[in-house]
Amino acid sequence: MVVREKILDMVVGCFKRHGAKRLDTPAFELKEMLTEKYGEDSGLIYDLKDQGGELLSLRYDLTVPFARYLAMNKVKKMKRYHVGKVWRRESPTIVQGRYREFCQCDFDIAGQFDPMIPDAECLKIMCEILSGLQLGDFIIKVNDRRVLDGMFAVCGVPESKFHAICSSIDKLDKISWKDVRHEMVAKKGLAPEVADRIGDYVQCHGGVSLIEQMFQDPRLSQNKQALDGLGDLKLLFEYLTLFGIAEKISFDLSLARGLDYYTGVIYEAVLLQTPAQAQESFNVGSVAAGGRYDKLVGMFDPKGHKVPCVGLSIGVERIFSIVEQRMKTFGQKIRTTETQVFVATPQKNFLHERLKLIAELWDAGIKAELLYKNNPKLLTQLHYCEDMGIPLVVIIGEQEMKEGIIKLRSVASREEVAIKRENLVAEIQKRLSES
Amino acid sequence: MVVREKILDMVVGCFKRHGAKRLDTPAFELKEMLTEKYGEDSGLIYDLKDQGGELLSLRYDLTVPFARYLAMNKVKKMKRYHVGKVWRRESPTIVQGRYREFCQCDFDIAGQFDPMIPDAECLKIMCEILSGLQLGDFIIKVNDRRVLDGMFAVCGVPESKFHAICSSIDKLDKISWKDVRHEMVAKKGLAPEVADRIGDYVQCHGGVSLIEQMFQDPRLSQNKQALDGLGDLKLLFEYLTLFGIAEKISFDLSLARGLDYYTGVIYEAVLLQTPAQAQESFNVGSVAAGGRYDKLVGMFDPKGHKVPCVGLSIGVERIFSIVEQRMKTFGQKIRTTETQVFVATPQKNFLHERLKLIAELWDAGIKAELLYKNNPKLLTQLHYCEDMGIPLVVIIGEQEMKEGIIKLRSVASREEVAIKRENLVAEIQKRLSES
Repeated sequence: MVVREKILDMVVGCFKRHGAKRLDTPAFELKEMLTEKYGEDSGLIYDLKDQGGELLSLRYDLTVPFARYLAMNKVKKMKRYHVGKVWRRESPTIVQGRYREFCQCDFDIAGQFDPMIPDAECLKIMCEILSGLQLGDFIIKVNDRRVLDGMFAVCGVPESKFHAICSSIDKLDKISWKDVRHEMVAKKGLAPEVADRIGDYVQCHGGVSLIEQMFQDPRLSQNKQALDGLGDLKLLFEYLTLFGIAEKISFDLSLARGLDYYTGVIYEAVLLQTPAQAQESFNVGSVAAGGRYDKLVGMFDPKGHKVPCVGLSIGVERIFSIVEQRMKTFGQKIRTTETQVFVATPQKNFLHERLKLIAELWDAGIKAELLYKNNPKLLTQLHYCEDMGIPLVVIIGEQEMKEGIIKLRSVASREEVAIKRENLVAEIQKRLSES
Repeated sequence: MVVREKILDMVVGCFKRHGAKRLDTPAFELKEMLTEKYGEDSGLIYDLKDQGGELLSLRYDLTVPFARYLAMNKVKKMKRYHVGKVWRRESPTIVQGRYREFCQCDFDIAGQFDPMIPDAECLKIMCEILSGLQLGDFIIKVNDRRVLDGMFAVCGVPESKFHAICSSIDKLDKISWKDVRHEMVAKKGLAPEVADRIGDYVQCHGGVSLIEQMFQDPRLSQNKQALDGLGDLKLLFEYLTLFGIAEKISFDLSLARGLDYYTGVIYEAVLLQTPAQAQESFNVGSVAAGGRYDKLVGMFDPKGHKVPCVGLSIGVERIFSIVEQRMKTFGQKIRTTETQVFVATPQKNFLHERLKLIAELWDAGIKAELLYKNNPKLLTQLHYCEDMGIPLVVIIGEQEMKEGIIKLRSVASREEVAIKRENLVAEIQKRLSES
């Protein structure tokens, strides 16, 4: 939990730096709100039992609830972040690294704005967070749903199969092109020559020059949708260059993203571990993703009024395990509490004095603990401080009481000094502010 | 959300001051884990649909999941806090001020310790939080389940009716003694003279002297359970006096707490608004509560091993609405974002410069925004800052570009100064650290 909190603080700090306000929505939504939003994964939605009220489901992500919220409250413009749990009926034993309950951290910009400015900011946020967390080198793959659809069209995919083929392409980060091609041809009934034409495209990735190349592509340049997408991507790269992050972004024609609701630019950040590994398997792990969804809010509005949106989601669960793993490797120990001072005594029948003293520390805002025993042994008390990493111990005893003093012990150095009883709080505060 | 976060930060800060570590548990538990834990309220548990896995329910509070966690992981000792959502099938239109989803903030101490030391700390925490939040005057009612049971026994309540009568007594903060008496006699079949004997007790409240009085009570002093409870309460008050909070605590024989799992001391904090109001209706609103539950962990342990626990829950939803209401009354305005600097231009075709500049601010950790427009009007940009309470504006234009300067404007004073372009970040950081 300590590691999680540190990571979440960093992520939320970045969201706030970009002017987002916090929003929260309920864990459950009306079941009907979630249907037909998640493509092939809809079967993973948890439904609540019909107990004589509405038919409810647990939210599957934070994007659909956000769109529902905007439509319900007729909000036309909003920059919000949301940190919350989502639920999916995965079989954790079958799909490794997936959970049935996990935390999502989303940032989204809703509203009608000039093209690609908010989109570029989303990519900037992803870069800031991934750099800030020091997870190692990373790259963000970018594509556009319209480029994908255009590509399918010019390759000869029947429109009825766009969705199915898109889902296959989406698996390219997990399985090889050969296997994806087999799925498209054998399972989804695509003509082999169409599959091969797609293969030529989806194995391309690069920067602005690849966008230019696609503009010149004899087939793709005949498709209006593809040209719109390419035009936006070109503008996006212009802004990414101004933000100083263009070299972190790769235009990748194999990026598909499984969710139904995306309508424009889509992106996904992956960690690259070492150059050698990066060559073998490009996708060491997706740690953040997002895209533009201009029609989702309209699906919840009774009159179909649209609010264009673009956003991103940070894969914090994945990041948690990476950071935890790294800490284990380096043998880093983490304190689970923040206690600053421990109140101890070497003597029997000193509970009353310990209680009075600790109340004084708490009232001064000092984080303090004692053992809940009438007569604990001094050694037990000192061991507790070492185990828990508590830096300071206050030791009170009969002799000290008589002299109006108290002992302050540093757990690390085992040094003890006697100080005047009335100066105790001030001395502790001084020591804590110095450390 | 901003108000909620401030209150939660304060509550969590207090929990950490008392040495607690954070714990999180899943939103759902196995259905069987929640049965027979919540008395009459069990019908309010949300069940998940049987989708071919386990039978699951959404958690109803954070206490039962904590006990389940301790038993499952064989943890014998732990001081933890938990901030999380819980779910209850209330009808919000019928029961005012209750929600179907709400946030709970719990602090609990598990382990075998010397009597009443952790219990006293729980009451100290409640006092620190309620004082810290400046909600006005409050009092914490304290009782003990064993005193209640002893009282029922000596009044002649049949043991089979303890639970039902306890639930009736629990309503004394909402309905009058007359109505509670009626419910006990007419609905729960208690003999009227038994009800009247209970009535004599439950209308008593006071401090240590009332405990002494009850020790002398001819009936109650004959009951071992009651004497055990009274003995612990006496010791508790001794510790509360050392903590300097005894005058905030009232021994109240009418306090029952509906939940099945309490076994010892129980407590509930209520706000007192004005002395006049306090006389009329003692219970302006329960804002925190808790108690000792020594047998709950054993219910989850296959061998029945017990881990004594005591804890408290802060009623943050109630506190949120009180603070919100007070802010409305005093016309306080709260910023929903933390943006420090806005990047503006009076000129057309300055998007590139704005983007480069804002990236520089973000990279320096400065919270900054701009409008997502190619050519926004200066007035629109300045109005946005006033609306959102953004304190500083950076204004960039052609003339300034040529001279290598930039204008920094204070939104409040409308003062503008020109500074060197390369000193911008330093100057902003200086201003922000001063304010």
